[in-house]
Amino acid sequence: MNADLVIRNARVLTCDPARVGLGMVDRGAIAIRGGEVAWVGPDADRPGATRVVDAGGRLVTPGLVDCHTHAIFAGDRANEFAMRAAGRSYLEIAAAGGGIGATLGPTRAASDEALVAMLRGRLDAALAAGTTTIEIKSGYDLTLAGEQRLLRCIAAAGQRPAPRCVPTLLAHLVPPERVADRGAFVLEVCDQLIPRVAADELATSVDVYCDEGAFTLAEARAILGAAKAAGLAVRGHVGQFADLGAAELLADLGALSADHLEQVSDGAIARLAVAGVVAVMLPGACVQLRLPVPPVGKLRAAGVPMAIASDLNPGSSYCEELPLQMWLATTHYGMTVEEAWLGVTRHAAKALGMPRVGTLETGAHADLILWGCEDPATVPYRYGAATSLIEAVYVGGIARHATPRPVET
Amino acid sequence: MNADLVIRNARVLTCDPARVGLGMVDRGAIAIRGGEVAWVGPDADRPGATRVVDAGGRLVTPGLVDCHTHAIFAGDRANEFAMRAAGRSYLEIAAAGGGIGATLGPTRAASDEALVAMLRGRLDAALAAGTTTIEIKSGYDLTLAGEQRLLRCIAAAGQRPAPRCVPTLLAHLVPPERVADRGAFVLEVCDQLIPRVAADELATSVDVYCDEGAFTLAEARAILGAAKAAGLAVRGHVGQFADLGAAELLADLGALSADHLEQVSDGAIARLAVAGVVAVMLPGACVQLRLPVPPVGKLRAAGVPMAIASDLNPGSSYCEELPLQMWLATTHYGMTVEEAWLGVTRHAAKALGMPRVGTLETGAHADLILWGCEDPATVPYRYGAATSLIEAVYVGGIARHATPRPVET
Repeated sequence: MNADLVIRNARVLTCDPARVGLGMVDRGAIAIRGGEVAWVGPDADRPGATRVVDAGGRLVTPGLVDCHTHAIFAGDRANEFAMRAAGRSYLEIAAAGGGIGATLGPTRAASDEALVAMLRGRLDAALAAGTTTIEIKSGYDLTLAGEQRLLRCIAAAGQRPAPRCVPTLLAHLVPPERVADRGAFVLEVCDQLIPRVAADELATSVDVYCDEGAFTLAEARAILGAAKAAGLAVRGHVGQFADLGAAELLADLGALSADHLEQVSDGAIARLAVAGVVAVMLPGACVQLRLPVPPVGKLRAAGVPMAIASDLNPGSSYCEELPLQMWLATTHYGMTVEEAWLGVTRHAAKALGMPRVGTLETGAHADLILWGCEDPATVPYRYGAATSLIEAVYVGGIARHATPRPVET
Repeated sequence: MNADLVIRNARVLTCDPARVGLGMVDRGAIAIRGGEVAWVGPDADRPGATRVVDAGGRLVTPGLVDCHTHAIFAGDRANEFAMRAAGRSYLEIAAAGGGIGATLGPTRAASDEALVAMLRGRLDAALAAGTTTIEIKSGYDLTLAGEQRLLRCIAAAGQRPAPRCVPTLLAHLVPPERVADRGAFVLEVCDQLIPRVAADELATSVDVYCDEGAFTLAEARAILGAAKAAGLAVRGHVGQFADLGAAELLADLGALSADHLEQVSDGAIARLAVAGVVAVMLPGACVQLRLPVPPVGKLRAAGVPMAIASDLNPGSSYCEELPLQMWLATTHYGMTVEEAWLGVTRHAAKALGMPRVGTLETGAHADLILWGCEDPATVPYRYGAATSLIEAVYVGGIARHATPRPVET
């Protein structure tokens, strides 16, 4: 075989489930051909290649997969952040124009071009922090036409080669103007919005926010049922504030993931495990909202795969950096370094139903990070330093980001 | 007046105690002459200047002051981080060669040149995240000669113009080889080390670690007494794990600061307030070690000024970014955005006894940050993004860092 590119003299963290633990290949090499991983093995056995990069003994990992973001929005909620820090209640903040209303208005008012440009800025920041695949939910318009517009903007922003963008239709809330006829609105989501989104291939999955103040369990069941009928995968925001029983629903439906889970019963955990549903941990939002820590020990004991995501959104977690979420997961949530790595690679890919990202095994997309360090634990350990720890980020075998070095002026 | 530089069309967050709150001058300007702040006021009234920078309506703040770091060390403890995340106990980690011993050995073995180079790398990272004044403690050698060597290395690293470096002699622990005669060791610190450090002007203050496993209250009293006798200011690491009564000691001695304070009595808080001692909050280390949150509400109610620092060190907080600590302080600690800003500016300067940094008032050093945002709350709100939110960092009126922009390759 002659590869397009070989990265040699590397510690290759494959996250390959066929290997032990994180699947580290020490003194390893990785060969790339046609944008795919063609071979991984000992450096001494590496194939020939058109181009060879010497990693200098440093770490090569899969590109990171951010499986839960609300990255498309307009408007700033820094003022609301300050109010919450000053001890103002949710109701006081809402009365002052805060809460999701502060995002809905500016997002609805923004042009397609403005939304795409803002989203692209966030995608650039995510890529610089190592994210090569990013899920992006709609959800900040709430009207049927508006949600489809957001998904079209996500598709437009995702036309660039990196990072890979995965659009999700989020049934976020009943829009304020439809509260009086919420039953009719839910039916429109089920009968009109979801079939149209599926027909136009605007999203690959439907996510529902089932919690106090959002959709009820019965509404979530109707929405996710419509999604499955339309051939879309399903996910859910569940148990962030209250356990409405939606985790059990997700298990019954064979959902890709159940996200947040600050409140979840032991019975639901067992059912998530049996159904192979990924539990998506969102520690940044948990810390910012001062919520209790999800039951990581019980999820681990039950064998539920755990992913970790940024939850990038203007209300509870304005952060593009997955390595920082890894630090929060290992320190505040008590996850291990191995769990943190799988959480932003293989398990996150499973939450997206994408078998070809999140690992460095033969046939996977050649999405990878060349780090400036040798130990996988260094990535969460040196918290806040992700962009400077990264040397280069490859997507489909092509370097799409190289970290600039500071200049003194 | 003709200024060297005027930064105009800015929201100038002065942190000037003579102004209300954070001392924001909206539609403001700042004039710099001879490396000092010469004038701050309305943009319309700005003086003439040799050079004018238009801030485009964006935020200008004091350069950040990191008042508590252990930034001089060799050796990596990423492995220990992974062990702790895997649930290993302090004793298990120590038995595996972790703990401070994993830093002592490499630090003692490192050459002066290597220590200075590693420290300079960390100073560069801190500067890129907005730190213009940084305190650096000795403490990872523990021998009398070795601690003086570390202080000389700090002085060497600090010869560059930015950031400003403030050396502190830290009485960290009794060295392992002196445990059998710890009383004699403490006497040597008091009678030999401290007077020599003072005579050679190697540090401006002495800090003592008074906690379980470190120095006792009686030993701390002796060490800080010797420091005061030598004309040095005093500080203390107190109540991180156990309350040994050292906060009261610091109040009695008129210390600059009492740091950590996860465990502190109501009576001690009252005495810190009366004595004007700054409480230094170290939220990164608190989260990483999964310690209880310090009594921020009681400190606030008592009127104790609170600073926020990185605690940059290889064991519990490997982080150079103060804005990220501001996010932790506002979310995990429940501090307000105003408290977070004062915590990394004016109050941090007070913890260092440095009246000319931490504010933008006439006569202060012209150390400042030009941000890419308008709202002070954006800095903690957009957590993990500090380096990209910063446009430029000035020290003594001269731009010493400009944030490079990502390049696609």
